[in-house]
Amino acid sequence: MSRRESSSGRSVPAAPRSGPKVVALGGGHGLAASLSALRHVTDNLTAVVTVADDGGSSGRLRREFGVLPPGDLRQALAALCGDDEWGRTWAEVLQHRFESDGPLAGHAVGNLLIVAMWQRLGAHVTGLDWVARLLGAQGRVLPMCDVPLEITAQVEGLDPNDPTAVRTLRGQSVVAATTGRVLSVALEPANPPACPEALAAIRAADGIVLGPGSWFTSVLVHLLVPELSAVLHEAKGTRVLTLNLAPQAGETRGFSPERHLEVLRAHAPDLRIDVVVAHDAFVADQPALAAAASALGAELVVADVARRDGSPRHDPERLAQVYAKVLGG
Amino acid sequence: MSRRESSSGRSVPAAPRSGPKVVALGGGHGLAASLSALRHVTDNLTAVVTVADDGGSSGRLRREFGVLPPGDLRQALAALCGDDEWGRTWAEVLQHRFESDGPLAGHAVGNLLIVAMWQRLGAHVTGLDWVARLLGAQGRVLPMCDVPLEITAQVEGLDPNDPTAVRTLRGQSVVAATTGRVLSVALEPANPPACPEALAAIRAADGIVLGPGSWFTSVLVHLLVPELSAVLHEAKGTRVLTLNLAPQAGETRGFSPERHLEVLRAHAPDLRIDVVVAHDAFVADQPALAAAASALGAELVVADVARRDGSPRHDPERLAQVYAKVLGG
Repeated sequence: MSRRESSSGRSVPAAPRSGPKVVALGGGHGLAASLSALRHVTDNLTAVVTVADDGGSSGRLRREFGVLPPGDLRQALAALCGDDEWGRTWAEVLQHRFESDGPLAGHAVGNLLIVAMWQRLGAHVTGLDWVARLLGAQGRVLPMCDVPLEITAQVEGLDPNDPTAVRTLRGQSVVAATTGRVLSVALEPANPPACPEALAAIRAADGIVLGPGSWFTSVLVHLLVPELSAVLHEAKGTRVLTLNLAPQAGETRGFSPERHLEVLRAHAPDLRIDVVVAHDAFVADQPALAAAASALGAELVVADVARRDGSPRHDPERLAQVYAKVLGG
Repeated sequence: MSRRESSSGRSVPAAPRSGPKVVALGGGHGLAASLSALRHVTDNLTAVVTVADDGGSSGRLRREFGVLPPGDLRQALAALCGDDEWGRTWAEVLQHRFESDGPLAGHAVGNLLIVAMWQRLGAHVTGLDWVARLLGAQGRVLPMCDVPLEITAQVEGLDPNDPTAVRTLRGQSVVAATTGRVLSVALEPANPPACPEALAAIRAADGIVLGPGSWFTSVLVHLLVPELSAVLHEAKGTRVLTLNLAPQAGETRGFSPERHLEVLRAHAPDLRIDVVVAHDAFVADQPALAAAASALGAELVVADVARRDGSPRHDPERLAQVYAKVLGG
């Protein structure tokens, strides 16, 4: 059995894998949705996760300890938990948030556990592999970078007296909640060190899935890390871009599906996409969307991929059917 | 395979056990020492742990959430961790304490995990069984009671103008650190509900080990819970009382080994002990100690049970040799 060696000298035995090698990039609920779908398609799954969050429990841990924000990583790990009582119980405990009037209120237990793992083991990837093993996770979860990142955004529409004035907003939590119109995002530091295991996974992947998720702060952000962007441009695997079910209040209020593709193209003009997956109810002008997809080199797949309960989330099994066709799972 | 059912409907498969059934009662470092020894003697080990701590991380969690103080339970679980990389790594992470200038400073990760388990599962024993399984623990860890307890102590010698004046101190952390002389301890509430699984384990035990540990606040405290005391009085198993290596600053400053036995007898006059284990270097007057042991009904065993590195701790293997003889492991 192969073992993952780490700089700390500890190793985690790797579970045997089957199915196409798929890498999913994103953050938060969007990435959890794509992972929940992809686990139906393959056992050979790697999540590459944004580390720019500065709000909530993650933001507080970042400020208290100078660590990577663990929240998006925790959420991805929970989405991959083993499908048995053991995996589900540990996922539930790691997702548990303390409720009180005291200093622990709002902290997610898994965030605290991941930070402790990093502090003991001294290595991000090894720590995450240990938590993945605890959960019996069906796949691996990696940070996109080895340093915490800050997102800045150019935003217009914040000044009622001058609707075209552009302001710079700073911090993912601020950008995600803006009432203005996001024009572009950038990272500080501008050239952070990508996670080597993430680069290797993308190079080796049969399929690469971007989105759904907060479009600027969880999806496009991966294209702003130069090493990661370069590997995404060169990778041999099928590149799938999954659109959100609808525009998001804040980042993409009023955005058409076409506009989502245009801002992607503006941030990575040379990136070729193979397939764009769009939810049918979000598509008002299919020829326009097909043209925008074609400009990226992509075929457009339109399908009903929403949950039937009316919640604004992707349905894992419907999305899995689309991914299985596209990725050959 | 038998399963432990719980009120929450979740169950944890029980590992097969071998060796004599032994219950160890105590708290903190003392209990960890007896467990570290007893795991060499038997696989059939249950720790019954004090829940009166009100200091440090446990005290803060008690005040923030109204839960049982988890620290002594965590320490007992870590002492029983599986003897492989998996068990040792998780024990190390659960024992990890956050260091910062912020609100998490000093919290032990395992305390946070245990509290989260209780909040999710709604049952103390089931939550502890889950953490024991995580650690691959060689035994089971139970709280002595299902409600948090407060220790009060009658202490003399605190008033320099009146050395025989007696004051009441409140709280384990205050009692453990007193510069006075502890005369007796009591509990609030005075008749707390004992943990049913702990009572059952003591009834079924082949051997029952009390101490070492903070004499009043970790050892005698078990005799102050009426249901627990009654079962300890009636139990069929061999009762072993392990003395500390030396008096403790605070609770037992200046106490001879005989004095340790006398205060036990004062708190539980009818309790019969079968074997008293004393460290040779602590025994100044062996006939006096043998007489004090005999007054409890006990044989005295004197042995060198300290670590060779000069640290004031019991050596697990030396103590195990004594326990093996006494308990027939």
